[in-house]
This record gives sequence, C-alpha cells and structure tokens, in this order.
Amino acid sequence: MNSEYKVSKFKLNNLNDFNDRISIEEPLEIIIKYNDKGIWVEKTISITMRTPGDDEDLVRGFLFNEKVIEKIDYIEKIEITGVPTEQYGLKNKIIVTINNSKNIDIDKIKRNFLTNSSCGVCGKSSLDTLEIIKKDKILKSNPKISKEVLMNSPNNLRQNQSEFSKTGGIHASGLFTTQGDIVAIKEDVGRHNALDKLIGHALQKKLLDNSSQFLTCSGRLNFDLVQKALMANIAILIGVGAPTSLAIDLANKFDMTLVGFVKEESFNIYSNKERIIINT
Amino acid sequence: MNSEYKVSKFKLNNLNDFNDRISIEEPLEIIIKYNDKGIWVEKTISITMRTPGDDEDLVRGFLFNEKVIEKIDYIEKIEITGVPTEQYGLKNKIIVTINNSKNIDIDKIKRNFLTNSSCGVCGKSSLDTLEIIKKDKILKSNPKISKEVLMNSPNNLRQNQSEFSKTGGIHASGLFTTQGDIVAIKEDVGRHNALDKLIGHALQKKLLDNSSQFLTCSGRLNFDLVQKALMANIAILIGVGAPTSLAIDLANKFDMTLVGFVKEESFNIYSNKERIIINT
Repeated sequence: MNSEYKVSKFKLNNLNDFNDRISIEEPLEIIIKYNDKGIWVEKTISITMRTPGDDEDLVRGFLFNEKVIEKIDYIEKIEITGVPTEQYGLKNKIIVTINNSKNIDIDKIKRNFLTNSSCGVCGKSSLDTLEIIKKDKILKSNPKISKEVLMNSPNNLRQNQSEFSKTGGIHASGLFTTQGDIVAIKEDVGRHNALDKLIGHALQKKLLDNSSQFLTCSGRLNFDLVQKALMANIAILIGVGAPTSLAIDLANKFDMTLVGFVKEESFNIYSNKERIIINT
Repeated sequence: MNSEYKVSKFKLNNLNDFNDRISIEEPLEIIIKYNDKGIWVEKTISITMRTPGDDEDLVRGFLFNEKVIEKIDYIEKIEITGVPTEQYGLKNKIIVTINNSKNIDIDKIKRNFLTNSSCGVCGKSSLDTLEIIKKDKILKSNPKISKEVLMNSPNNLRQNQSEFSKTGGIHASGLFTTQGDIVAIKEDVGRHNALDKLIGHALQKKLLDNSSQFLTCSGRLNFDLVQKALMANIAILIGVGAPTSLAIDLANKFDMTLVGFVKEESFNIYSNKERIIINT
C-alpha cells in the first residue's frame, strides 16, 4: 500500500516539484483473545510498524514464527478492528481468537512479551498517542546546508565508517556540521542503534549544536529514525534510501527537513526544503 | 566489531573458499536500576540486537531518545556486566543507575515497555536462551537449487513486487520452488514483517513444501530472518545483502544454507553449501 506525496527532486542541477508514491508505514496492534477458565481475556502482545495490507497473514506468520501458537489452525477467528484513521481510513487493530486456551502457553506469553526491543513504538497504538514525541516543541533551529554538502555526506559517512569496508554489512549514522565536517559517526547492524549510539555519544560529550548540525543515516528513513532525530532537536535528517509515509508525516508535523534517495548528483526533499541551499 | 568467518564465494564461474569479515550481532539486555523508597529495584526495559561496541553510548541515546530520562545527567552510573560469552568473550548486560527515582516516570516505563515489537528477540538474553528457536529440530529436508536459479531469484523477486517499482522503498520476501518458480511474494517496509506475511500466507493456504522450496529476501540477513525461516522449516535462505554473525551462527547450528550478497554473477555461501549446485 502506498500514497502520493509531494516531493522536490534535485536533478540535472534543477529542483522540481512532483508527486511521488511513498510506501505507507502505520502501527498495527496485535491482540490475542482467549477463554481463561470461563472468562474472555484480550491481551495486546505486540505493536509493530507495518505496511497495511495482508494484515491477517502478517499476524498468522508472526504468531507462528514467534511460537505463540504451534499450529495455524489454533486460530479460530481474526478480526480487523479499531477506529479508521483519519488519513487513510485504516483499521490498525487486529484481534486473534485462539480456539482453546490450552493451545497457548499463557505464562510464556507473559514472559516473552513483557519486554520490548528498542523500536520506539512499543506500547503506543497510533501516531496521535505516540507520546514519546514531544508535542510542544516544533523545531525552531534553522541550520542550512548547501546541495554540495548534502550530496557529499553519504560518501563522507561511508568513507569514515571503520567497519563498512571490512564487512559491507553495517549501518551508520553521522552527525555533521553545516560546513560538511564530521562531528561523530557511529555504526551498528541496526539503523536505530547506530543513531542511538551517535546521539548518546553527542549528549555525553556535549557535542550537540542544533543551529549548525545535521544528521545523515545509511539505509531507509522510517518512523524510528525521524523520532530519534527529533528528540535530539536536529532539524535536517538525510537518508540514502526511501522514506516511509510516517517519516514524512512526522517531519512535516515537526518542521524537520527530510531528504532521501541521496545520490552523487540527485536527491529528494520531502519536507521544509528552505533549509537546503540550491543556488550556491 | 566484526569477526572472521569462512565463506564460499562464487565468482567468475568458480566457487572458492576464503575468510571474510562479518559484523557481529549480539543481544544486549538494558537494565535500569533505581531506588524506590529505600529499596533498590532493577528492571529490564529492553533487549536489543546490536553490534557490540559503544554500548554505553547506545544506552545513553536509547534512554534519552525513548524519553525514559529527560536529561543525560540523570544517569549516575553505567555498568557493563554479565557472564562473558563463550564465542567472543562479550558481556551482554548493562545496568544503568538513575540518580533519583523522581527523575524517571516509573508508571510510564511500565506502560511503554510492557509490550514488544515483533523483533523475535524480546525477553531473551542470549543465543542459548533463545527458546523460540526449536532446539530439537535440525533441518532434515534437502532441497537443492542451481546457481542460475539462485542468482536469478533477487531479480525475480523485484520484478514481481507490486510496490517496489512505485516507491523504491519496500522490502520483499519470496517463496520459490527449487525450479525458480514463484510460490508467493509479500512486501512490507519492515523486512521481518514481509517474511511474517509470506509465511502466514503460505501456512494458511497450505503452500509450504520444504523439500522443494527456498526463500529469498531483499536487504540484509539478520538473526530475525533466519529464525523465522527456521520456524517454517525452510532449508535455504537467500539475501541480497550482508549477513550478521548471529545469522551465520544460527544457520550453521540448524543446518540451514545461508547465501548473501547475491548479484547477477556472484554470491557468497555462508553455510551448508552442498544445497547449491554449481556445475549444471
């Protein structure tokens, strides 16, 4: 599932607006329902960011692959529910009724699903309730970068990764000055971890200066990366790959400049293009 | 952090063994410690798969970005602990002491960290205790595929994605027959979701036949994808990108054939190469 978004594309030395298709990213709350000694129990076991579509298959696969159920026919019923979202009319809750409480290990579910991974979404059921995002602070800082600094930053990032040349399999996040100088670079197999390491390092060493810095990340731009950049008050976030719908929505909502698909001579700006200087 | 692994590389029509550097992926358990009315409490709030190194920065950034703490100096002490792992001598637990329980919202932590994302790792603290992996069942099925079917599968996957050509920003997983025919393809912004959708669909439609099928995924190969493929009893997992150390370790442990870095004329086999037919 995808949707149309306005994009400003820089190519052949020109910036032009056009409409592009963007993959949708939305939270899905997975609830299992079972009869525990005569009482119906509903338990949220996961909230995952997913592209809507095939939600029933997603939940079947998730419950089987995470060993919540051992056989697919333990699922008696799947209901897609929730108040349709304003933006796309999506229902983002799914209730899976298990045919017999003997077919799930309730203690194991409690044990295995009582902690979370660091995805930043856990426990939140929609964008509106993503309380982790500061609602009060729209970004007020106004760093600007030239198109040259922008297009050079992925190369700059890659050339200064310590691990990439060795393994070809590690993500990186870099904090740069608006002049293009490196403040710090961190790496991890997880994109979100690389950014957490970078921001943790910058906070500890008191390196953050949101009036004169920007972030560049390898890979795609999803909700998680935008949220973490917002928490650190960084106004420009650059990614080598494609953004999701939610990444663009958040960037717009909080006045962040989001840039994706950065290549040597082209890039796409998804929000607040005034921070990118085209005519230098 | 990376380590040396034996790889069989197919290139220029020859298969040769060599040692390659692989990025390490290991779980890190994040525990916060605080004094609650005179009693010291330790609470695991996350287990994340990460590349070891900069663990203190990772945890600082995570706690700040996920709004567990509002200021970095609320952290009084960080201790890296746990029994060193056999394989790399790593300590995979980190205890963060918060200077004052007033500086964390304990109810919010309970609320936000009581569910998990679908990463497949949550609540498990090391590879040995990853009970989600079936310990009893080493893969016994023995499908074989030719190098041509293997090298063609990423193109086959991409050309048959419904969304990729539109957005350029969505992952896919495909189930193929050993002859190279498509059984099913599913897409999502999350790699793990694409694979959950695919396996959920295949289970529901009773399409799985592990004696004559293999999986190809876009992107990199991490713990999560290998685990999900193992649950579905698929013996050959192919990825377009790099594998992590844990992906290779798991594939070796369970006799899965893991192939990465697949290009039009080359690929790397990381385990059990006998399922790939080189001389056709």
